[in-house]
Amino acid sequence: MSLNAVFEGVGAAVAADVGNAKASVQVSQELAGLMECHGTTGTGHRVVVDEPQSLGGGNKGATPLEYALAALGSCQLITYRLWADRLGIRFDKLAVEVEGDLDVRGVFGLDPKVRPGFGAVRVKLRISGPEPRARYEELQRAVDAHCPIFDALRNATPIQTELKLG
Amino acid sequence: MSLNAVFEGVGAAVAADVGNAKASVQVSQELAGLMECHGTTGTGHRVVVDEPQSLGGGNKGATPLEYALAALGSCQLITYRLWADRLGIRFDKLAVEVEGDLDVRGVFGLDPKVRPGFGAVRVKLRISGPEPRARYEELQRAVDAHCPIFDALRNATPIQTELKLG
Repeated sequence: MSLNAVFEGVGAAVAADVGNAKASVQVSQELAGLMECHGTTGTGHRVVVDEPQSLGGGNKGATPLEYALAALGSCQLITYRLWADRLGIRFDKLAVEVEGDLDVRGVFGLDPKVRPGFGAVRVKLRISGPEPRARYEELQRAVDAHCPIFDALRNATPIQTELKLG
Repeated sequence: MSLNAVFEGVGAAVAADVGNAKASVQVSQELAGLMECHGTTGTGHRVVVDEPQSLGGGNKGATPLEYALAALGSCQLITYRLWADRLGIRFDKLAVEVEGDLDVRGVFGLDPKVRPGFGAVRVKLRISGPEPRARYEELQRAVDAHCPIFDALRNATPIQTELKLG
């Protein structure tokens, strides 16, 4: 199945009414143990998050930082699929390794100059298929221009937090 | 169990050698279906990502965007737990709802002025417990200053992508 039908369907819906371009992504979670978090996503999937025992957790699920990198890696893979179909670029296999550098002084407040987030993230993709190198490089440029989580991390995303009691 | 022991352990390790502050977060994933992604995290957890049927996927797992928001929500919850113990602030229940606004024109290349990532993200926390409001507000400030994924999204994160053939 080609995903060009998805591109065409989205394009037609947005052409009919630009309001159709607006989407909302939602997740609900609660602290269900010392650090274990249970949650459900808008598409109905359950997500369990925890910390490893070395950090006092129960290791019942991947960590928040691992999920963030898994979001990035999978967003890259899926955007490769979408844009490969769009650009008529064939491939057989695609895999990714994502690695993030953390300095825990930021998280634990040991040095106010150290940021709590990733100091750097490396995304290493491996693709195989019948196309010449230049076409896969064209695909990489298209993906990095259109991948939502790549953009959300690489550029500042406006976030508001609100705390209610009760 | 109080997580102050974790703070103390990390603090002592970093005081002994600042190199102990460096950590690496890792995830490996591959495209295992049209858009279905299978992966494993550094702490040994399997993560399945997919797209809903409305976007041509099989809905076998949450989407990359949902996982990104789940990473943010759970990172907030866990950082609340850590810093509540650090600051001596008691609470009974803590839950979060995270919502992200997306304009799909960015992802599908329908308008180069529209970013592919989230236009805005709202994090709505609800806490209950015996402390006065001011203490929970103090906790919120400490969390938002030290939460890794909040920082990674709110501020620009350096990311490199590399594509290899074969």
